[in-house]
Amino acid sequence: MKNNISTEPYKGVRDFYPENKFVQKYIFRKMREVVEAFGYEEYDASILEPTDLYKAKSGEEIINEQTYSFTDRGGRDVTLRPEMTPTIARMVAGKKRELAFPLRWYSIVNNFRYERPQKGRGREFWQLNVDMFGTKGIEAEIEAVTIAYNIMLKIGAIEKDFEIKINYAGIIGTVLAEKFDLSDGEKRNFIRLIDRWNGKKISDDDFNKKMEELLGKGKSEDLMKAMMNGEIKKIVDEQPEVKLCQEIIGRLKKRGITNVVFDPFIVRGFDYYTGVVFEVFDKNPDNNRAMFGGGRYDNLLDIFGEEKIPAVGFGMGDMTAIEFLKSRDLLPEYIPETNLYLCIIDEKFTDFADDLAQALRNQNLNVAIDYSYKKIGDQIKKANKKKIPFVICIGENEVKNDKFVLKRLVDGKQEEISREKIFSKISNF
Amino acid sequence: MKNNISTEPYKGVRDFYPENKFVQKYIFRKMREVVEAFGYEEYDASILEPTDLYKAKSGEEIINEQTYSFTDRGGRDVTLRPEMTPTIARMVAGKKRELAFPLRWYSIVNNFRYERPQKGRGREFWQLNVDMFGTKGIEAEIEAVTIAYNIMLKIGAIEKDFEIKINYAGIIGTVLAEKFDLSDGEKRNFIRLIDRWNGKKISDDDFNKKMEELLGKGKSEDLMKAMMNGEIKKIVDEQPEVKLCQEIIGRLKKRGITNVVFDPFIVRGFDYYTGVVFEVFDKNPDNNRAMFGGGRYDNLLDIFGEEKIPAVGFGMGDMTAIEFLKSRDLLPEYIPETNLYLCIIDEKFTDFADDLAQALRNQNLNVAIDYSYKKIGDQIKKANKKKIPFVICIGENEVKNDKFVLKRLVDGKQEEISREKIFSKISNF
Repeated sequence: MKNNISTEPYKGVRDFYPENKFVQKYIFRKMREVVEAFGYEEYDASILEPTDLYKAKSGEEIINEQTYSFTDRGGRDVTLRPEMTPTIARMVAGKKRELAFPLRWYSIVNNFRYERPQKGRGREFWQLNVDMFGTKGIEAEIEAVTIAYNIMLKIGAIEKDFEIKINYAGIIGTVLAEKFDLSDGEKRNFIRLIDRWNGKKISDDDFNKKMEELLGKGKSEDLMKAMMNGEIKKIVDEQPEVKLCQEIIGRLKKRGITNVVFDPFIVRGFDYYTGVVFEVFDKNPDNNRAMFGGGRYDNLLDIFGEEKIPAVGFGMGDMTAIEFLKSRDLLPEYIPETNLYLCIIDEKFTDFADDLAQALRNQNLNVAIDYSYKKIGDQIKKANKKKIPFVICIGENEVKNDKFVLKRLVDGKQEEISREKIFSKISNF
Repeated sequence: MKNNISTEPYKGVRDFYPENKFVQKYIFRKMREVVEAFGYEEYDASILEPTDLYKAKSGEEIINEQTYSFTDRGGRDVTLRPEMTPTIARMVAGKKRELAFPLRWYSIVNNFRYERPQKGRGREFWQLNVDMFGTKGIEAEIEAVTIAYNIMLKIGAIEKDFEIKINYAGIIGTVLAEKFDLSDGEKRNFIRLIDRWNGKKISDDDFNKKMEELLGKGKSEDLMKAMMNGEIKKIVDEQPEVKLCQEIIGRLKKRGITNVVFDPFIVRGFDYYTGVVFEVFDKNPDNNRAMFGGGRYDNLLDIFGEEKIPAVGFGMGDMTAIEFLKSRDLLPEYIPETNLYLCIIDEKFTDFADDLAQALRNQNLNVAIDYSYKKIGDQIKKANKKKIPFVICIGENEVKNDKFVLKRLVDGKQEEISREKIFSKISNF
């Protein structure tokens, strides 16, 4: 007995049947509409990158635990891109002298991370990446948050569905180092822990437990107390970087974007952030968690030996967006691209059906033909199952009179019309 | 001294700067228009597949020499998809009972093959895949060739730019086995050699040399003679499968597609073809070679232990298409998505510029803002370099009078207009 090959995809990745692809394309279209309105142009790159690209600044967790890395047949160390920022930095660094800054670029690409697959999180996810290079001022942060906000609205969210939290990278570390005498290593681990806790990746209990492990019982309790009684908040609020965040929040409010708040515990997972960072949170009480985010990374061109270029960007994944839409009943209903299904009653009418289909395609209708020559009822059932809205059957009568019964499947309504009327009837039914 | 990371992409893959992405998107858009007109719906899948998927029928050269395969962190053997057909077969097999046949699906995806990078051939290439499942008759082959032909016309080719060669898979093998007493191994190797020779991957000299290596001098000379003097052609023409090819050619001619010929030496590189195969050839005398092709593969669901479903499909790569367009001077000129560039004379006008931009975006204009506050001449130069067609500068006058000087960069023409006129002026300039 031979072994059959499995029809399952690789663990943690998705097959996109047309109904699934339709949803993804809907989200990508909305994303494109917003970012292009703000003057962003699309770029792209291979998912396969030299492994070195991620060693410098993508963060230890990703490099040590989550990358798909291997050696190619020529001995080169390569990695399936876990995120797009190092790639765009590489491309900008590579053509720096030819490019006109400020640069506004976006991409919609897939990334790979070896993680435990769960709801809204897979080993492969697609992501919109939006980056502006060459703007020093907070206009860049304001634009990034505005675009993120507008995409949320574009896919159907209302303002109270989500909240945008902003912070200044490293600020909590500065405060902690100052007041609690943490080493750099403790600081970094603590910040990473806060990131996981804030993003709802670990529970409150686990957070407390891990904090004790990291800092010891005494320091951990002191810190917890200071967090709870507002002491840390007070020290944070005195930092000059917080004024910058408050100014951004104020200017966004003037634009009518009122769901932005300052949160000193927002920490992004990547090591390259140098300034303001933000995260968009789902306010669904059953699923309150970080959906996506970004921030300023002014120093990333360093790793290529190039002069710094100020940069602000964010990434928005398709899986969290789909989960968000699902939980709000905002997913679009599947409509195939195909407008009309032609059924053929007998093989001898095939040439006629082909000619009619071609004439309608020339008018920009999308027409599929059933060449099965099965019973007409069976053929119409197929059209129904495919959710194609209209059907015409080709038989003796149609060929002789050049008149066609156009049937709308959703309600069974039908009408006999001439060839010239098919296009307008389908367009305006 | 620290080591800088290279700004080069991985060898054999491409960075798509916006100008490059524009060309690729243009080709994909044309492809989509054609396949959707014929009723094909888009599907997709991950580039990462279990390695087993390719072991059965993708062909030895691909598996042994060209795949990117590795073991994931959980010990699973995985491969970066070298082609899409095994994936679509897997997906169809997996939901066979829920799907309505005939099924018309397309995808536009990237594939990886470890080959020597050269013009029109990279280690990563993007490919349109067009497949129909569930049609036994030659209507399926006719439709596939018609679509391929229509895509060529859609991207700007005329009929004499290319030729479509069709054949029946295995026919040359049958003939050779019958007349020249070749073993199955010799047959397979010989067919593979013909494929490489036909696709202009090896020279005539190399072909002769390799043929001698494969079959020995005597057999090789006999075969060559029989090929040259028409003996093989005569035997081929007597095979019943050739009549099928001739019927397809005849029916395509009736549809106005007259550049299709029968060629018994067309051999596709994959082992799964079971019937008619075809290849589209560039007729450019400097670059006469196979661009893309496909054929019938009725048995591929076997490998999943599922009943056969008749299937016809083809794949068309972006790199050969781009080379074709380049050689014919048919590449589209780059036009950014952005319509208008707003320059700001002084920081105090930023809020006003932001408001104006937002109002124009609400009218579906794509508007980028320069927040550099550099000299206006410098800002306009940037717009020019980005090829953005229109510029408006925001200063004292504009804010006071709500009148704007709209400048068209291609010819420097400008006009003072009110806010309400900006949209229509840009749309109809």
